[in-house]
Amino acid sequence: MAKVKKAPRPKAQTPKGFRDYFGHEVRERTEMLSKIAGVYHRYGFEALESSAVETVEALGKFLPDVDRPNEGVFAWQDEDDNWMALRYDLTAPLARVYAEHRNDLPLPYRRFAMGPVWRNEKPGPGRYRQFYQCDADTVGAASVAADAEICAMLADCLEELGIPRGDYLIRVNNRKVLNGVLQAMGVTEEEQAAAVLRTIDKFDKVGESGVRELLGKGRLDASGAYIDGVGLAPEQAEPVLAFLTSKGATNGETLANLRNAVGDAPIGAEGVDELAEIADLLAAQGYGPDRIVIDPSVVRGLGYYTGPVFEAELTFEILDEKGRKRQFGSVAGGGRYDDLVKRFTGQVVPATGVSIGVDRLLAALREKGRVGGSETGPVVVTVMDRDRMADYQAMVAELRQAGIRAEVYLGNPKNFGNQLKYADKRHSPVAVIEGGDEKARGVVQIKDLILGAKIAENASLEEWKERPSQYEVARGDLVAKVREILEGQA
Amino acid sequence: MAKVKKAPRPKAQTPKGFRDYFGHEVRERTEMLSKIAGVYHRYGFEALESSAVETVEALGKFLPDVDRPNEGVFAWQDEDDNWMALRYDLTAPLARVYAEHRNDLPLPYRRFAMGPVWRNEKPGPGRYRQFYQCDADTVGAASVAADAEICAMLADCLEELGIPRGDYLIRVNNRKVLNGVLQAMGVTEEEQAAAVLRTIDKFDKVGESGVRELLGKGRLDASGAYIDGVGLAPEQAEPVLAFLTSKGATNGETLANLRNAVGDAPIGAEGVDELAEIADLLAAQGYGPDRIVIDPSVVRGLGYYTGPVFEAELTFEILDEKGRKRQFGSVAGGGRYDDLVKRFTGQVVPATGVSIGVDRLLAALREKGRVGGSETGPVVVTVMDRDRMADYQAMVAELRQAGIRAEVYLGNPKNFGNQLKYADKRHSPVAVIEGGDEKARGVVQIKDLILGAKIAENASLEEWKERPSQYEVARGDLVAKVREILEGQA
Repeated sequence: MAKVKKAPRPKAQTPKGFRDYFGHEVRERTEMLSKIAGVYHRYGFEALESSAVETVEALGKFLPDVDRPNEGVFAWQDEDDNWMALRYDLTAPLARVYAEHRNDLPLPYRRFAMGPVWRNEKPGPGRYRQFYQCDADTVGAASVAADAEICAMLADCLEELGIPRGDYLIRVNNRKVLNGVLQAMGVTEEEQAAAVLRTIDKFDKVGESGVRELLGKGRLDASGAYIDGVGLAPEQAEPVLAFLTSKGATNGETLANLRNAVGDAPIGAEGVDELAEIADLLAAQGYGPDRIVIDPSVVRGLGYYTGPVFEAELTFEILDEKGRKRQFGSVAGGGRYDDLVKRFTGQVVPATGVSIGVDRLLAALREKGRVGGSETGPVVVTVMDRDRMADYQAMVAELRQAGIRAEVYLGNPKNFGNQLKYADKRHSPVAVIEGGDEKARGVVQIKDLILGAKIAENASLEEWKERPSQYEVARGDLVAKVREILEGQA
Repeated sequence: MAKVKKAPRPKAQTPKGFRDYFGHEVRERTEMLSKIAGVYHRYGFEALESSAVETVEALGKFLPDVDRPNEGVFAWQDEDDNWMALRYDLTAPLARVYAEHRNDLPLPYRRFAMGPVWRNEKPGPGRYRQFYQCDADTVGAASVAADAEICAMLADCLEELGIPRGDYLIRVNNRKVLNGVLQAMGVTEEEQAAAVLRTIDKFDKVGESGVRELLGKGRLDASGAYIDGVGLAPEQAEPVLAFLTSKGATNGETLANLRNAVGDAPIGAEGVDELAEIADLLAAQGYGPDRIVIDPSVVRGLGYYTGPVFEAELTFEILDEKGRKRQFGSVAGGGRYDDLVKRFTGQVVPATGVSIGVDRLLAALREKGRVGGSETGPVVVTVMDRDRMADYQAMVAELRQAGIRAEVYLGNPKNFGNQLKYADKRHSPVAVIEGGDEKARGVVQIKDLILGAKIAENASLEEWKERPSQYEVARGDLVAKVREILEGQA
């Protein structure tokens, strides 16, 4: 056999589209998920952590029609040649879990789930192949009280995370109303209905007149290309435009406009009744239209869901990457889908749920300064005399036992400047120094690194002399003095 | 094209070797990880959440030598035919992350990581293909102060989780001492050294005389098979037996025995010095041999690590599946490995770390009744009149706003018995009832379900009459009365 060439060094990098999260990024997300879990739990929802790996058969949506089902999911064959894949969301696994365990689970089953999902899609800026989802769903409840409850819970979550009333709005629409509108328009053919739905999805972008053109003959878009229209007569397009623009000053007004738009289509009337009921239920719980409002211009998800749909928006303005003001926009969405487990059992089970976009919401909170900001590192005990490591370890042990985050410098202690550079890189608030002289006198030096940095930046020589940032205290007062400095910094 | 046959219904089950975690299982693990993270953080360690997916090249250990690298890891090819795989532990990703970001990370770099890992191995009872790891490592610290710190941190973690002093023991050994022993034995050839290591690994199972036989001519094992020995002369085997049995009544005695075992091999003396230093550092921080002890009979991991190795054991007895008493055993282990990033950079970077077996530790805490036990569900507000759902929702909203976990029954309310069955399945502590009569009189009925169940089980008719488990209170007193009952149950 030929001698094997020495392998080249492997590249130290994540696969394309994946990333790592460090320190405060991890902690901030963990804290956010923990707060959301607290609200979900208070509402009676139970945690579920399903396997990250599913059979491709159970995932369903991406069944392989070629040798390797690499469209949308990351998939591989197990030792028995069965296809397995990483979950691409938390809803498909819920369907599998509910179908598998339905005899043991309570009915209705309220569950929440949070964790990474994976998409085999082209990565882009801010668009990763692994990201977090955070869902809550109620399975087996046909009543729109379940939908109303999820909207209220979503409002509670946002407030729990520090987003004040007025900075968010949850908007509610209903697919059934749209179905009524389609009937009122005389659109019965499936293909034409789908074309209308696709057009409605563009309402956010092209506005009322754009939708009117696209439902009719067509439209010249901004790039100069001509987009063919659905080909409806102008009067046929009216109900859907009435639907999209029916938002009134109050829920009552909106509901009246919607009743008009659906005419006498029974499915439409049912949809409007459901929205009225949701508004009533929420009002009874104290959630007024300043927090959750009936708004037929919510179109995202209308094609996917079968009943009420809802979307949470942050209404404050941020500056986009080009420095222009814009609203932050959607951070959560959901709705009712009534065929969750039908694929598995043949049985129709009503379900409704919401998914919170964890990463977008974290970005929003960072934008508003509600998480993150200045990171404080541990107190660093420096090493002046490497033979007295036990003394320094005893100091950090005391600090830690007092609940203070602390560490001893564990690198090569020869160069003291490196130790202070390390403390700086760690954003340490305080450094502790005990050389041979201090040891002999029974004292330690304690440096307030944050005050020191401020003084170095701003102070005049006089101020600098008046406000020392280094203190000598008795060794026995170490913990008390460090705590005093930390409390002064907070 | 032929018409496609309707696909059969997919099976609702996890892939072989995977499982789901429900409700309290998820919560208990989350709480455990959160407590451990708190201790790690207090010690100055920073969180790292690396991508679950790595290039097979970066993972290294399982490089594909066949068409598909399906040995040990779950792997697949991306769109550019590069192999990717799910991480099989948290150490290989740390090596990749450190090599990739070493210019931005502090040195030393203390990091912790917790999350699922995946193994493509034959599943068995209690042996899953996805499980949690929870690691802390210090990269770039050559000093054994780093090892001592990790042992102290491990003790703090166990106590933080409610395992009292005396119920756990952390045992520390050193690979360098073993290397000295090998020198003292005159074992220099790599293959023979590996054979000795493999034999040492059997010490836990076959004991001193078994190891003696296996180092010599060989041994008849329990099944009647003859196991060939390493073929050392009896006197050659002595140093390793002295090493394995050198545990004395105190650390000082153990260290003296070890100095004997290594003779004048310099590497051995270095190893004993390191153990002595670790014992001193720990003593200075208040961690005596009742918590962390030098114990050369720790052999697990000696083949893998390059310096100190440590193992945490729970020392209390449990009953095994056959009802026999046995010690619970190991729940965490780690040690020093000094070639973490060499594969990537060519540079030798010293590192030491520990991995806590989350699932085993949870099982231990459940065994001791320190987590789990009786699960309490939400307060259930029943639906007596489906037209008054808004009233019931208002009740749960009040309860939740008071911090009480509560839900309204969202199933079909027609059969009241089903509602109580549901409350039972949810382990609800309290049910709230408000029929038309109660509504008219401005009251609600509150059932103490836990007391009710106790009375139904145990009480005589007289007691039952004296201790009612159902109370009628004014609607305005709902929250106060529910809180009173919950506090009485706690």
